[in-house]
Amino acid sequence: MTVAEESLKLHFEKRGKLEVVPRVSVENSKDLSLAYTPGVATPCLEIQKNPELSFELTRRWNTVAVITDGTAVLGLGDIGPEAGMPVMEGKCVLFKAFGDVDAFPLCIKSKDVDEIVNTISLISGSFGGINLEDIAAPRCFEIERKLKERCDIPIFHDDQHGTAVVVTAAMLNALKVVGKNIEEAKLVVNGAGAAGISIAKMLIKAGAKHLLLCDRNGILYEGYEGINPAQLEMAKITNPENKSGLLADAMKGADAFVGVSAPHCVTPEMVKSMAKDCILFPMANPTPEIMPDEAKAAGAKVIGTGRSDYPNQINNVLVFPGIFRGALDARAKDITDDMKMAAAKAIASLVTDEELSPEYIIPKAFDPRVGKAVAEAVKNAVKR
Amino acid sequence: MTVAEESLKLHFEKRGKLEVVPRVSVENSKDLSLAYTPGVATPCLEIQKNPELSFELTRRWNTVAVITDGTAVLGLGDIGPEAGMPVMEGKCVLFKAFGDVDAFPLCIKSKDVDEIVNTISLISGSFGGINLEDIAAPRCFEIERKLKERCDIPIFHDDQHGTAVVVTAAMLNALKVVGKNIEEAKLVVNGAGAAGISIAKMLIKAGAKHLLLCDRNGILYEGYEGINPAQLEMAKITNPENKSGLLADAMKGADAFVGVSAPHCVTPEMVKSMAKDCILFPMANPTPEIMPDEAKAAGAKVIGTGRSDYPNQINNVLVFPGIFRGALDARAKDITDDMKMAAAKAIASLVTDEELSPEYIIPKAFDPRVGKAVAEAVKNAVKR
Repeated sequence: MTVAEESLKLHFEKRGKLEVVPRVSVENSKDLSLAYTPGVATPCLEIQKNPELSFELTRRWNTVAVITDGTAVLGLGDIGPEAGMPVMEGKCVLFKAFGDVDAFPLCIKSKDVDEIVNTISLISGSFGGINLEDIAAPRCFEIERKLKERCDIPIFHDDQHGTAVVVTAAMLNALKVVGKNIEEAKLVVNGAGAAGISIAKMLIKAGAKHLLLCDRNGILYEGYEGINPAQLEMAKITNPENKSGLLADAMKGADAFVGVSAPHCVTPEMVKSMAKDCILFPMANPTPEIMPDEAKAAGAKVIGTGRSDYPNQINNVLVFPGIFRGALDARAKDITDDMKMAAAKAIASLVTDEELSPEYIIPKAFDPRVGKAVAEAVKNAVKR
Repeated sequence: MTVAEESLKLHFEKRGKLEVVPRVSVENSKDLSLAYTPGVATPCLEIQKNPELSFELTRRWNTVAVITDGTAVLGLGDIGPEAGMPVMEGKCVLFKAFGDVDAFPLCIKSKDVDEIVNTISLISGSFGGINLEDIAAPRCFEIERKLKERCDIPIFHDDQHGTAVVVTAAMLNALKVVGKNIEEAKLVVNGAGAAGISIAKMLIKAGAKHLLLCDRNGILYEGYEGINPAQLEMAKITNPENKSGLLADAMKGADAFVGVSAPHCVTPEMVKSMAKDCILFPMANPTPEIMPDEAKAAGAKVIGTGRSDYPNQINNVLVFPGIFRGALDARAKDITDDMKMAAAKAIASLVTDEELSPEYIIPKAFDPRVGKAVAEAVKNAVKR
């Protein structure tokens, strides 16, 4: 059986990967009088007096909504809200397994920014945080921005920020392996959607000064016509020489390539044109921009992908459970750039200098230390 | 410690009465590839092809949202959305314990009918049913009506229908105890809010022909000024002689009284003015319209309240877990009057003729047979 077939079988057998279970017993009248009426009136009135107590007297403090509109599910595109739910449920499973966060999946039947924002904002009092997921760009940027304005709990679009954090962690360590400096390194990010834009921004935040961001038609530059406002903003803060050209042009002499784009769009020749000891993160999933073996044969020194069957799996499961664990524990009202950078550095630091090698730049997805280390770093980075 | 104090202590200790837990393990790469990427793409695509499969491949088939706007929480009134959540969580605990339904609590920060309807409708693809809770009348009627139009899953306002079902069950058995016939019996329902109106409608559906519905100013009749549209509709279908008068007038010669109103609004004199072998369900919570001992001393034959410390506790925990269990199992798109009546009769039938007595007209809240019996009856009553 293929993985696809086996997964479908599992889904038919399980009929859902989550369950909502009680943390109190209701086996007799006494139990009922405490967990429900009449006793429950007291915690209700306490919250009425002080709404902050909803983080003490209900599960809100540990609960995150995982929300999609179904428009950019995995690499499948706009498959509809209900069809996105198996992914949302899977994400919720990971939240609990790696961050002990109670995550609940929701899909929204709308593609209208304001309608989505309004819906999420109106139910946000039920949650301690909101994880947006698989919402198409550029709509996702506006939805996140507006929600951050309206809500007083953390809003986090994982496809953007989770990916950016884990790529930054991997890049910091990969640069260490090849003995290069992020300020001087020439970096190329291919894919100018939600993930690519967020990765580029975070690498710049981490110190990158020579970064080119490409979409399917080539390098973003000021004057590039037909790009969306988010991409235009990127053209301004990347590409200081305002170069134009194809991806192949961008990669000439580059020290590192990050792909969140399409299968097989990078050729061995393009890798050969890069600088010595170059870094390649072809992360298109499941088929990367170039297969790791080809990249290596063409001279790449450090290679990371989204896949578990090659070394250096760059997977945002290393990020979101710990980020939310830390944000929830700190009762953060937002997830800031500082918190994200703290998460990236915490992940990178789990690989010691002795362990660091071209085949080991980032902890494994199942490394039990990661969630806690990220949570602790994020918690400490919350501004008081 | 009082129940109030003990409940508050429990809530502070537990910090939430619910938890979201995985039903699949994610202990290694293989697990992850089946529950999450890349395998999860297959169930997603199956649902895209046939959205009905969201009831097979995700937990939707067993999941109900318990939703409030916080405007009529218990008897506490409009205490705000977050403050309603301890009750919603408690309700979800009961859903799981008595119906094996995965229920998730949500509060909505709005008092606008259309905004509430839109929010619930847009997230309804995540659920197999919607249980509305503690929403003030008359807004609750419009919200429920509009949601039933827009959603293709069951919508159930428990304060209305759950209460109506359990009162009907109790009334059918109480009338049997006193040897009276519902068609001939004179019934009084006091309280013309969500519960009172729904109880009156259901008793009429069960055969009642002589029913007076009262609000705090007395009997509803055509021509009564200042009542809302829902109450006006009730004035038309109750009170065939179009009487006016106070509650005390309504109760003269009545065979049964149902109170969903206010503490101590019924006096022993009013009970004495009722017919021989009269039935009293003073259900105001926690303090009834008249205390059972007083009612008995004044001549009431069968007495039921909302309280667990007296015989005949008329509690809608007997209803909602089984109603939703049955509706979910049948993949019902609505909860109809027939399904509600089937639930009432199923509850009533669990007390055998031999067991039936003034002190035992309705099963106990913890009777393990109830949930299953209601579910089975409801499932069979679903129109195909």
